[in-house]
Amino acid sequence: MRDTQQRVVLARIPVGVPVPEDFQLVEAEVRQPGPGEFLARAVYLSLDPYVRSAIAGRHLGHGSSATGDLVPGRSVCRIVASRHPAYPEGAWVLMETGWQQYAVSDGRDVRRLDPSLGPLSASLGVLGMPGLTAWAGVMTIARARAGETLLVSAASGAVGSTAGQLARLAGCRTVGLAGSAEKCAVVREKFRFDACVDYKQEHWREELSHATGRHVDVYFDNAGPPLLDAALDVLALRGRVVLCGLIGQYNTGIPNTVALAPLIRKRAQVFGLVVYDHEATFEDYLRRASRWLAEGQIAYHEDRSDSLASAPAAFHRLMSGRNVGKSIVVVSAEDEEG
Amino acid sequence: MRDTQQRVVLARIPVGVPVPEDFQLVEAEVRQPGPGEFLARAVYLSLDPYVRSAIAGRHLGHGSSATGDLVPGRSVCRIVASRHPAYPEGAWVLMETGWQQYAVSDGRDVRRLDPSLGPLSASLGVLGMPGLTAWAGVMTIARARAGETLLVSAASGAVGSTAGQLARLAGCRTVGLAGSAEKCAVVREKFRFDACVDYKQEHWREELSHATGRHVDVYFDNAGPPLLDAALDVLALRGRVVLCGLIGQYNTGIPNTVALAPLIRKRAQVFGLVVYDHEATFEDYLRRASRWLAEGQIAYHEDRSDSLASAPAAFHRLMSGRNVGKSIVVVSAEDEEG
Repeated sequence: MRDTQQRVVLARIPVGVPVPEDFQLVEAEVRQPGPGEFLARAVYLSLDPYVRSAIAGRHLGHGSSATGDLVPGRSVCRIVASRHPAYPEGAWVLMETGWQQYAVSDGRDVRRLDPSLGPLSASLGVLGMPGLTAWAGVMTIARARAGETLLVSAASGAVGSTAGQLARLAGCRTVGLAGSAEKCAVVREKFRFDACVDYKQEHWREELSHATGRHVDVYFDNAGPPLLDAALDVLALRGRVVLCGLIGQYNTGIPNTVALAPLIRKRAQVFGLVVYDHEATFEDYLRRASRWLAEGQIAYHEDRSDSLASAPAAFHRLMSGRNVGKSIVVVSAEDEEG
Repeated sequence: MRDTQQRVVLARIPVGVPVPEDFQLVEAEVRQPGPGEFLARAVYLSLDPYVRSAIAGRHLGHGSSATGDLVPGRSVCRIVASRHPAYPEGAWVLMETGWQQYAVSDGRDVRRLDPSLGPLSASLGVLGMPGLTAWAGVMTIARARAGETLLVSAASGAVGSTAGQLARLAGCRTVGLAGSAEKCAVVREKFRFDACVDYKQEHWREELSHATGRHVDVYFDNAGPPLLDAALDVLALRGRVVLCGLIGQYNTGIPNTVALAPLIRKRAQVFGLVVYDHEATFEDYLRRASRWLAEGQIAYHEDRSDSLASAPAAFHRLMSGRNVGKSIVVVSAEDEEG
């Protein structure tokens, strides 16, 4: 391992959709682990919408950031030096690293990864918190049942694609909303949704009516308005709505809202979802999802970038909705599997 | 019975809070009942916020109104002439009459009233649809349990006061929101809530925090924003919210909305309530409520006006939030009980 590393810091506080110029790649020292610590090399860095609000100081549980701060982020890492008995050299972990090549940890908030359960990068998506989010929303909260119709927004993303596939396994008819023809093709073909509506097409609301039969039993919302309003329009009486993401709000900071009259008119049942509440069910979910993945019953799709230097551009793509699938930066190709 | 009667028609479509000049008292003929019909004399006319949106064409299930149209409304009536076997002369009924002294009906959408179950005017409040609304929201939808805290807005109104009292009988701690010191006194003293916060006072949000301990298990919303937002602020994690009324929207027509981020942050569970869904439970509710009323376990409060000519002024008072209790117009005093 080297004595210096690359890291990405905030060059300025982004306004609206973050652009590459909001970030700066810098050289930094690699700190060596002290007693009870280990040093990990980031292999797969996860890019996630919550980072957008974190760097504006708006995300639940994150403080605000300042110019020069390391950009927050979690990575799949390999331990390269250890003075911690529970985290030996060579082990794989998922941990907060920020956007950098190496990070030291004392083991807090670190999850050991078992490579036998599936591809390691999937720990950032279908086999990780996005997958658990989908599981909690579809099964624990909405309790989707066979024969029902589930609609999900951001359907090509890690949460949305998993939500639809879990609903299919539960016997639901599944309809996605996604923001391009390319995304919709992935949703239909790779994720095997029954239908996917491109909401950037002119007649998308008519298409949504047609694809859902105006009878959505469960709407899994990753997007907020205006898709939420359109979904309420095709919601069945007493349909369930899982509120999970506010990607529009992440960029603008303007609070997303929903009109009350349609909620009353549809006798909607709306549930706020925070995945942290469901961590106790993670091991159970992971066992199931790992088996489904191995059997080919569920799939995942990644939008990979090939170096830390490309992370700002990839984040811009993510926050503009132009990524297809889970956004991952391959930080150190030498550690990749296979 | 006379050949002519008084009725109140729309003089113009109201803008904002309706004023007496929006209405006009006119003379009209009394039609005699044909075969299979009966003629009823209105005794107690109910004034309700939904009428505000009905006369702007916005209420669920009502068409829009035009100048010269009879103002819609339901009344407790006595049958004064009948050619309908199921509705004999002298019987009491609740039916759509509009704002007038007499109305003919063929029995559709008419409910027979049993004077032995309680005061007849209570059929417009605690022993009628407002009471059933409260019952459905508190017991069927929110399933309020002993030891929980229920907060309700418009707490001196027919729905709100009944909701709080039913919750108290279920063992809840009850907190009301109302718009004057006078209303709050009625809520605390007559309806025996544990606390009532006057939201027109300067420091009402601090008072709300104090009165609820910032731990509301069930919020019964009759008002929409801004009280809804304040209620979400003191909602417990996974608290339930029953959406029942949008009185602010009735006057303005501007859609009431709620911010999504607090719903997610609180893992709120939100349920739209439409009372028509719960009509099958009405007889059960009526038996219980009648007994509780007779035993003095629940109370009701009426804001009475003494003639049809005073209905426009009373409706203005209602839509300005200056009524205290259920708004009722005594249309024909000669038929009053007692």
